[in-house]
Amino acid sequence: MSKLPEIAISIFSIMSKMALDYDAINLSQGFPNFPSDPKLISLVNKAMIEGNNQYAPMAGAISLRETIAHKVKKLYNKAYNPSNEITITAGATQAIFTAIAATISKGDEVIIFTPAYDCYAPTIELFGGIVRYIQLQSPTYQPDWDKVRDKISRNTKMIIVNSPHNPSGMLFSENDMLQLQQISEEKNLFVISDEVYEHIIFDGNNHQSAAKFEALSKRTFIIASFGKTFHNTGWKLGYCLAPQNLMKEFQKVHQYNVFCVNHPMQLALSEYLKTPSHYLDLPGFYQQKRDYFIAKLKLSRFKIIPSQGTYFQLLDYSNISEESDIIFAENLTKEYGVATIPTSVFNANKEDFKQIRVCFAKTEVTLNEAAAILNRI
Amino acid sequence: MSKLPEIAISIFSIMSKMALDYDAINLSQGFPNFPSDPKLISLVNKAMIEGNNQYAPMAGAISLRETIAHKVKKLYNKAYNPSNEITITAGATQAIFTAIAATISKGDEVIIFTPAYDCYAPTIELFGGIVRYIQLQSPTYQPDWDKVRDKISRNTKMIIVNSPHNPSGMLFSENDMLQLQQISEEKNLFVISDEVYEHIIFDGNNHQSAAKFEALSKRTFIIASFGKTFHNTGWKLGYCLAPQNLMKEFQKVHQYNVFCVNHPMQLALSEYLKTPSHYLDLPGFYQQKRDYFIAKLKLSRFKIIPSQGTYFQLLDYSNISEESDIIFAENLTKEYGVATIPTSVFNANKEDFKQIRVCFAKTEVTLNEAAAILNRI
Ligand SMILES: CSCCC(=O)C(=O)O
Ligand SMILES: CSCCC(=O)C(=O)O
Repeated sequence: MSKLPEIAISIFSIMSKMALDYDAINLSQGFPNFPSDPKLISLVNKAMIEGNNQYAPMAGAISLRETIAHKVKKLYNKAYNPSNEITITAGATQAIFTAIAATISKGDEVIIFTPAYDCYAPTIELFGGIVRYIQLQSPTYQPDWDKVRDKISRNTKMIIVNSPHNPSGMLFSENDMLQLQQISEEKNLFVISDEVYEHIIFDGNNHQSAAKFEALSKRTFIIASFGKTFHNTGWKLGYCLAPQNLMKEFQKVHQYNVFCVNHPMQLALSEYLKTPSHYLDLPGFYQQKRDYFIAKLKLSRFKIIPSQGTYFQLLDYSNISEESDIIFAENLTKEYGVATIPTSVFNANKEDFKQIRVCFAKTEVTLNEAAAILNRI
Repeated sequence: MSKLPEIAISIFSIMSKMALDYDAINLSQGFPNFPSDPKLISLVNKAMIEGNNQYAPMAGAISLRETIAHKVKKLYNKAYNPSNEITITAGATQAIFTAIAATISKGDEVIIFTPAYDCYAPTIELFGGIVRYIQLQSPTYQPDWDKVRDKISRNTKMIIVNSPHNPSGMLFSENDMLQLQQISEEKNLFVISDEVYEHIIFDGNNHQSAAKFEALSKRTFIIASFGKTFHNTGWKLGYCLAPQNLMKEFQKVHQYNVFCVNHPMQLALSEYLKTPSHYLDLPGFYQQKRDYFIAKLKLSRFKIIPSQGTYFQLLDYSNISEESDIIFAENLTKEYGVATIPTSVFNANKEDFKQIRVCFAKTEVTLNEAAAILNRI
């Protein structure tokens, strides 16, 4: 008998496999198809050749923790102590899993906005937690904080937020963060702030990191991703920031989950992160891709509201078809050769807004080819 | 309030930090201090340069899974299907954590031999399981299967075994495996077989992998480590073998714990693993180190029974001191400059056999220096 009868294979595995099987252009799973910076690769090679191939410290290479602390202080004006408030993880997913494992017990309720990235709910349930969903409404996907207040019970232990938001590209405003801060203080909640797209924000907007809000930061696990930031999702490195009392709990699980993470790559990232342009140039880089792709789709029948952040764009196909988004996305892959993600899979109640999600972290050649196909539909 | 009040910082973090603080020779945490093969490093570099820097498939790079299947078939005459019976993990620790997460629920009992590697018990307890310990007695550390039978209740769900055994260096015989097979079938138990030292076995003995025993393999998660085998514990790569029905459960957790693991390093390992001498030469390589170190300690006051496997050697100091092993190891680090692991920390009831564990995966220079100090004690 299965301990976890309801867990199925993730949509990313399904769509990436379908893309492969039908030789489709893969705009489904979120990863770039252009090279990682050769400078960064040669830093990894250097770290390996210089002999840094044994266990890193459990919390991560100290140089990397220091560089992160420096960056976070500069960007968000918040000082995290590298010695006990930062842990390097095997990707953001492992950080989210570990933060939940360290805090959620049987019967604890956790509030999640839906649509949401697909790992939150099954992880909460694995530890006996109960998920309480707040539906974000298309097309704005703005959070309604009164609804959040209404959902909170005396069993509510945590709230998970994600801005820039996957899959919608919506951003939390400063006011959203202040509301989150007030509610989480008032109700004594832990917070996971999934900020993996912190550096991919458009049209001059600023990232509202939980680190900027002093009272909020005191109860928050902030989750970040090197893979999303430096175009190497396959290196599986990220990190978690949290105040000392929470980080202590996080590390209790981390040390028995993975013990520590890839050492030579941590050292390379530490060096690479010291050049701020490596992340400060990202908004311009990705905004150009977003704009390029949207311009190419100008004459298509999709309705498009430009994404404000992440490297995802929603395409509304309600003018084109009445099919469910799952069927639409499947046909698009099999018959037209473009793999995307049907957004209903991110919705708790499978609500279908007739939207598919495309990843535009691709070369112009790929975006061009994909747009040419999408324009024919 | 902490969800996990009883979990403390692991002995490996404590001793490696103490080694650093006192500038001691570090024979504590189990890792080599000699370089990883430059051929393997350049394969990683090649994989990165060729652009394999995005997500691997959730179960791992297919080429690596195929190479592993081939190796396991050749060594243990057991066919694992690469498409659904092998998963590449972020080190053996993550594989153990995930196998436990996928199977153990509140109230389930798990049998562990003690002394044991320190991640089993806290992980079982994190998922609400209850640990039942079987004490292995110094100096032979042989399992007593009647004691195992006595400990089994109707709530027993799993048994964890580890041969070659850390910290004692003891091996399971073929008869031990047959006993394990019989008991686990009779009582319908899952098994985790932690085989991370499968290639480090001395004096002409053979590794008794659970893969060799057909009925046993049908209920077993076999855990293996590239870090221990290829001298790069800091790359954090390992794998899990299990029959399809168990692997399906394993992957349900794996995909939400880490999703997938380091892609370029998987591709490099796949190539490297195709040359059998890369692992078949290990017994000779490490036996030479064991023998070198023991010979150097011939005139010391430690009592030594040669390790049969792993890269650890126990040193019995009962002729030298009556101090607890924790005090003895601490003094050895602080006053003599050699860091080791007091073995009582691996014992459930902190039983103190007056033994310390040293890691001999070190250069001859280091072993020589350490022996010179140990001879003075
Ligand atoms: C871990 S695979 C999913 C990648 C991703 O962030 C997404 O496509 O939403
Ligand atoms: C994960 S750190 C511990 C390494 C090891 O296997 C040991 O020293 O026993």
